[in-house]
Amino acid sequence: MPDSSPFPVDPWLVRETELHLESLAQTESVFALANGHIGLRGNLDEGEPYALPGSYLNSVYELRPLPYAEAGYGYPESGQTVINVTNGKLLRLLVDDEPFDVRYGDVEQHARELDLRDGVLRREVCWTSPAGQAVRVSSVRLVSFTQRAIAAISYEVEAIDAPARIVVQSELVANEPLPAQEADPRVGAVLAAPLESEEHEAAGTAGFLIHRTKVSGLRLGAAMDHQISGPPGTVVEATSHADTARITITARLEPGQRLRIVKLIAYGWSGVRSLPAIRDQVAAALAAARATGWAGLLAEQRAYLDDFWASADVEVDGDPAIQQAVRFGLFHILQAGARAEQRPIAAKGLTGPGYDGHAFWDTEIFVLPTLMLTAPAAAADALRWRHATLDSARMRARQLGLRGAAFPWRTIDGAECSGYWPAGTAAFHINADIAYAVAQYVEATGDVAFEERIGLELLVETARLFVSLGYMDAGGHFRIDGVTGPDEYSAIADNNVYTNLMAQENLRCAADAAGRYPEKARALDVTEQEIARWQQAAAAMYLPTDGVPGVTPQAESFTKHEVWDFAATAPDQYPLLLSFPYFDLYRRQVIKQADLVLALHLRGDAFSAEEKASNFAYYEALTVRDSSLSAATQAVIAAEVGQLQLAYDYLAEAALTDLHNLKHNVRDGLHLAALAGGWSALVAGFGGLRLQRGGLLFAPRLPVGIDRLAFHLIYRGRRLRVEVMAMEATYCLLVGEPLTVRHHGEAIALTAEHAVTRSIAAIAAGPRPTQPPGRAPRPRSALPASD
Amino acid sequence: MPDSSPFPVDPWLVRETELHLESLAQTESVFALANGHIGLRGNLDEGEPYALPGSYLNSVYELRPLPYAEAGYGYPESGQTVINVTNGKLLRLLVDDEPFDVRYGDVEQHARELDLRDGVLRREVCWTSPAGQAVRVSSVRLVSFTQRAIAAISYEVEAIDAPARIVVQSELVANEPLPAQEADPRVGAVLAAPLESEEHEAAGTAGFLIHRTKVSGLRLGAAMDHQISGPPGTVVEATSHADTARITITARLEPGQRLRIVKLIAYGWSGVRSLPAIRDQVAAALAAARATGWAGLLAEQRAYLDDFWASADVEVDGDPAIQQAVRFGLFHILQAGARAEQRPIAAKGLTGPGYDGHAFWDTEIFVLPTLMLTAPAAAADALRWRHATLDSARMRARQLGLRGAAFPWRTIDGAECSGYWPAGTAAFHINADIAYAVAQYVEATGDVAFEERIGLELLVETARLFVSLGYMDAGGHFRIDGVTGPDEYSAIADNNVYTNLMAQENLRCAADAAGRYPEKARALDVTEQEIARWQQAAAAMYLPTDGVPGVTPQAESFTKHEVWDFAATAPDQYPLLLSFPYFDLYRRQVIKQADLVLALHLRGDAFSAEEKASNFAYYEALTVRDSSLSAATQAVIAAEVGQLQLAYDYLAEAALTDLHNLKHNVRDGLHLAALAGGWSALVAGFGGLRLQRGGLLFAPRLPVGIDRLAFHLIYRGRRLRVEVMAMEATYCLLVGEPLTVRHHGEAIALTAEHAVTRSIAAIAAGPRPTQPPGRAPRPRSALPASD
Repeated sequence: MPDSSPFPVDPWLVRETELHLESLAQTESVFALANGHIGLRGNLDEGEPYALPGSYLNSVYELRPLPYAEAGYGYPESGQTVINVTNGKLLRLLVDDEPFDVRYGDVEQHARELDLRDGVLRREVCWTSPAGQAVRVSSVRLVSFTQRAIAAISYEVEAIDAPARIVVQSELVANEPLPAQEADPRVGAVLAAPLESEEHEAAGTAGFLIHRTKVSGLRLGAAMDHQISGPPGTVVEATSHADTARITITARLEPGQRLRIVKLIAYGWSGVRSLPAIRDQVAAALAAARATGWAGLLAEQRAYLDDFWASADVEVDGDPAIQQAVRFGLFHILQAGARAEQRPIAAKGLTGPGYDGHAFWDTEIFVLPTLMLTAPAAAADALRWRHATLDSARMRARQLGLRGAAFPWRTIDGAECSGYWPAGTAAFHINADIAYAVAQYVEATGDVAFEERIGLELLVETARLFVSLGYMDAGGHFRIDGVTGPDEYSAIADNNVYTNLMAQENLRCAADAAGRYPEKARALDVTEQEIARWQQAAAAMYLPTDGVPGVTPQAESFTKHEVWDFAATAPDQYPLLLSFPYFDLYRRQVIKQADLVLALHLRGDAFSAEEKASNFAYYEALTVRDSSLSAATQAVIAAEVGQLQLAYDYLAEAALTDLHNLKHNVRDGLHLAALAGGWSALVAGFGGLRLQRGGLLFAPRLPVGIDRLAFHLIYRGRRLRVEVMAMEATYCLLVGEPLTVRHHGEAIALTAEHAVTRSIAAIAAGPRPTQPPGRAPRPRSALPASD
Repeated sequence: MPDSSPFPVDPWLVRETELHLESLAQTESVFALANGHIGLRGNLDEGEPYALPGSYLNSVYELRPLPYAEAGYGYPESGQTVINVTNGKLLRLLVDDEPFDVRYGDVEQHARELDLRDGVLRREVCWTSPAGQAVRVSSVRLVSFTQRAIAAISYEVEAIDAPARIVVQSELVANEPLPAQEADPRVGAVLAAPLESEEHEAAGTAGFLIHRTKVSGLRLGAAMDHQISGPPGTVVEATSHADTARITITARLEPGQRLRIVKLIAYGWSGVRSLPAIRDQVAAALAAARATGWAGLLAEQRAYLDDFWASADVEVDGDPAIQQAVRFGLFHILQAGARAEQRPIAAKGLTGPGYDGHAFWDTEIFVLPTLMLTAPAAAADALRWRHATLDSARMRARQLGLRGAAFPWRTIDGAECSGYWPAGTAAFHINADIAYAVAQYVEATGDVAFEERIGLELLVETARLFVSLGYMDAGGHFRIDGVTGPDEYSAIADNNVYTNLMAQENLRCAADAAGRYPEKARALDVTEQEIARWQQAAAAMYLPTDGVPGVTPQAESFTKHEVWDFAATAPDQYPLLLSFPYFDLYRRQVIKQADLVLALHLRGDAFSAEEKASNFAYYEALTVRDSSLSAATQAVIAAEVGQLQLAYDYLAEAALTDLHNLKHNVRDGLHLAALAGGWSALVAGFGGLRLQRGGLLFAPRLPVGIDRLAFHLIYRGRRLRVEVMAMEATYCLLVGEPLTVRHHGEAIALTAEHAVTRSIAAIAAGPRPTQPPGRAPRPRSALPASD
């Protein structure tokens, strides 16, 4: 797959107009449909060819042992791996006994399109069988946002030029064979045949399969029903086996005649409910979907998305590829979170098995900032999921000799699944990241009920963790030694500044929230003395300096280390972690992803404008961006320090990560954080949006190449629209109570439907910072205009 | 097994006078016989009961995959594990068809003794079968120091009180079943049935088995022959199968009549030689042993050991338990190295499967200092083994992005087998440790041929490693960042002082040696520029200070870390690594084993007397000695700074580690480093011996409780004896050219057989340093006098 996009630029569609088998892996991820509960990769209806078949249910995983060459205390003994559940999207087609398979015969025409407003994946193929029979196949697939247990496919076959005998086998298939695992550690483990059959049935136009995972003991049901319209003589048969339920539809089509099948698929699962309960649950979901009907499902889907876009859309004039990419990103973020409902938002959403389907800090630091201002209920649910895992996090803290809660570095159900502690357990910043998202969510929504019932406990337990993790030294500094910050090319360092600043904020937020909800705080055994300890630790938080003027060390002593020998590093040695040992990466100045620069963004209040500019320049020269979690943050800070064209380049890298397959691993699923990063680069970068206590701040400023940027936000029950041009910005409160926001520091009072325009002053920026040789972002202007 | 010794104190014997089945595991290790090539655990002749059957051949290992929960670049993919080879020591006995098994019937008398001068293990048992038949069994077992392929057993059965039908099955058994593996990571992996049969035969009184390891592809042969003297009518039969060769001897003994069998066992192995070659090799070894005969083997063994003790014995008056222990230690060190002949000396010698049979830095830093002054040829061979693995070490360095040679942290054949890099690969000090042993060996022996042919290349390649591992910073300091020193409760730290000081010495020694052998250096591509770089790096080596007066930080920032909460640590939470996660240990001030204190010993020239005393006191308060590699070093420095009684306590802990099973894991094999540590505590501690460039230094001083200490040394072809009393020391050059040594700094000229006596001044020491609560060494005076 080349780095350029195979998808023509279109404001609301992601299309392919030719089928490239070598791109199947990427398109399966790009064309994945999901609603946060169900995820279906964009596999071809007929199942084969595939790169990676994938049907996922959020939090349906299998356990596998985590092996260690040398064991150690506190190492997790088993890991969770998302599994490929029963495949309900299969519709195999035989044309005169010839299987419809694009690898044989001739594909005369092929097109697929993901419609970001309709929320469907459409496909249109004209195919001539090796025996010479031509057919046209049209399908439309959706995973419903409004009926979370439901996916549906409209499938149509038309005979062309000659009569054809058509057989469609619509199936549910469990335990599909999967391609062999790759050696790359970033690719999730593949588990063969994880499902044990409990019950199967097929009758009339319907069928179902009930299975249970072997070790994790989760029960899941998949059911299907069909509405079939074919010519007279169309025959329907039903059969089932342990791992297959099949409805076979046979018809003889005259040229121009069509067989149309609407397949409704329902999924349900539970770790506790009985087999009859699961069976009834999927049957009920199917009944509801039948009552709604295909047209009804389509209409609900469109209405749901119209509402979403009205409060979330981002318009970009001057760069249609970015316009497309930011909507593509928002659509997939919505798909990952919309109906997750207290289940995690994984790093790859439900688009592929990468990272074993685990959720990381990506959720709170990269995805939720977008969701909380565009679909705040989904953001709240993601944090409620964290809250629901507090018992696991408390147990983990005890195991590690700490107090409070130690959230896992990677998990599905809340148990730590990281098998490499220097880059897992030691990354304690995830706890402050969760606390940060809690505070930002409450700031964005004013959802005090959430804060009292959910947020406070998360803040308190993470604050307790940090007070026990750090210590007050003889010099009165509160130190946090031997932890790992965001940059995965460093580990086990003292006083990582990002961690310390985020922990400081965590401690302050916990103290403030405990003061606001004294009764609830008492119920959590919070005492005045404990609050005082949090405040003291926050006030004494140690921020090291290495004596390099203008440079805040990423961690204590960081700037004393040797700078990586970039000149001696060949282009094919990136990502460095696949070519160099950790020990060598850790001991040098080389940065995988924004760390101190992320602190400049999330704790911008702790740095002066000059410090931001000088730090940004220093770390730019060390940052190789071997992580998809970096470019967006670099875009935001580049924009803030006035490096607008550099910010633009980073925006493009973040936003196009998946459409251009920049990381060469879209096969395993989309990069949700990078997709959200496209939004952040635009809204927090060129819009200058910051959520600070008691205020919504903007500092908009566009790069050359983007003529107009408009974005919509939901903020404390209001809908806002901000439109940025080169020389001015216009703020409009679309719906809601009056509000004061800030434009480059100036307070602006907004009342509904009265747009306010303010001018934008030019910013004097220093010279453009440089990156390690070969690691500069691709200049946006060098991309073809049509791209 | 209690902490006190089950072995009565005796100057030259280690005996047990009762059989305690619960102590079998310990006695199998304590009574192990070896010659560096073959190792036989002290299993009972009849095979059962056992704790752990064990027959080992140095460097016969099997490969096993090293699994990782998360893979990483440069992680070793397979590990080597010592295997239990064909058991040749089995002599099963049937008394009137009742198997002789001490778990049944009555053991009327039982005694075993390891004779440190004869070099044999003797056993005497009187047993009455459940049916009431009494027999006396006497056996003597040896592993020959003079014929390295040979072990032999004299086995005698006598009928008591009544006639007995006796059957002895003398066997070779391959693929013995082994007990299941323990969870403790320090216990080596057990491999089931690693051997594949290639050929077997038994005829007359002889038999052999040829096998091959399945993955590592090593071929090994075991052969046996017997000399049998029994009453008329004694019958001998021979049978063989794939994994068993058996000679069955049947006799009817009248009361007082004896059946005597001498079993000769020969072992051979090779990774390259053919099956006929191995078969012939063991047959030839057997033929030679037959020619020598049992009496001849015993006589050779005694002569070999008489010669050893004449130049190695240590005499201790006032503490007979220490007297016994230091001889026991010297004997086992000799057994581990005597005939290793360019094979490694493993951490457990050939006494058990612990640590997978791997060799570590223990060899060079703890075992070789003893061997090079008592059996220097064995020390040279151990370093020749390192030299023979240089290609592996060079390849490993390339893989890690370094120059020169990176020796493995743990290995059998030279390939890195460490599956946890922060405590393996990152412990680069092992390279300086090897260089140190090279320089010390040359200093001790004056072996310039070794230096030119073997030593120089080791010095050069390790110096190259350190120059590429460290870097010259802007301030002109040569820094070595992100490595792990000796203390395994710290890892991945900057400028570990032990590492930096040892690397400095390595660089200097390489530069000096290259100057001494310019031609050989040129052949190794050493240039003047390279030598200059080594000298510059050595001169600029960074030794951090943390600003704590009198305290050298173990590594940069070490003293800024929180001190471990010893008060909150329960006694059963030691060793800490089994109760706390690495992350927590690494970030605090808590020390598993001497690290900076080891630097005080090996690089004593870099510290003033005051610095030694203040550093020792500081680190004593932090050191928990969860490693057997610590007490001896603490003894040496305690003695140097005048803490003589503390040194005595540490001497006892080191010397009695195995006889008292202080680490509770003697089951897996003896602690060679601790055994050598007993010698070091006496000779380098109370004898004050240091080998420095161009000189042999002594600074003797005895604690209360030891009335006299005398030790023998081989030094540059000379034999010396040093005798220390409370107030004076006497130096005697037994054999060799005149020599000047130093006594407490005063030069003393020695000529053969002219003893020189000098007085010892009292030393003013500060207050006795304290250890963490509960971690002080057991006061030596509290031990029973008889112990």
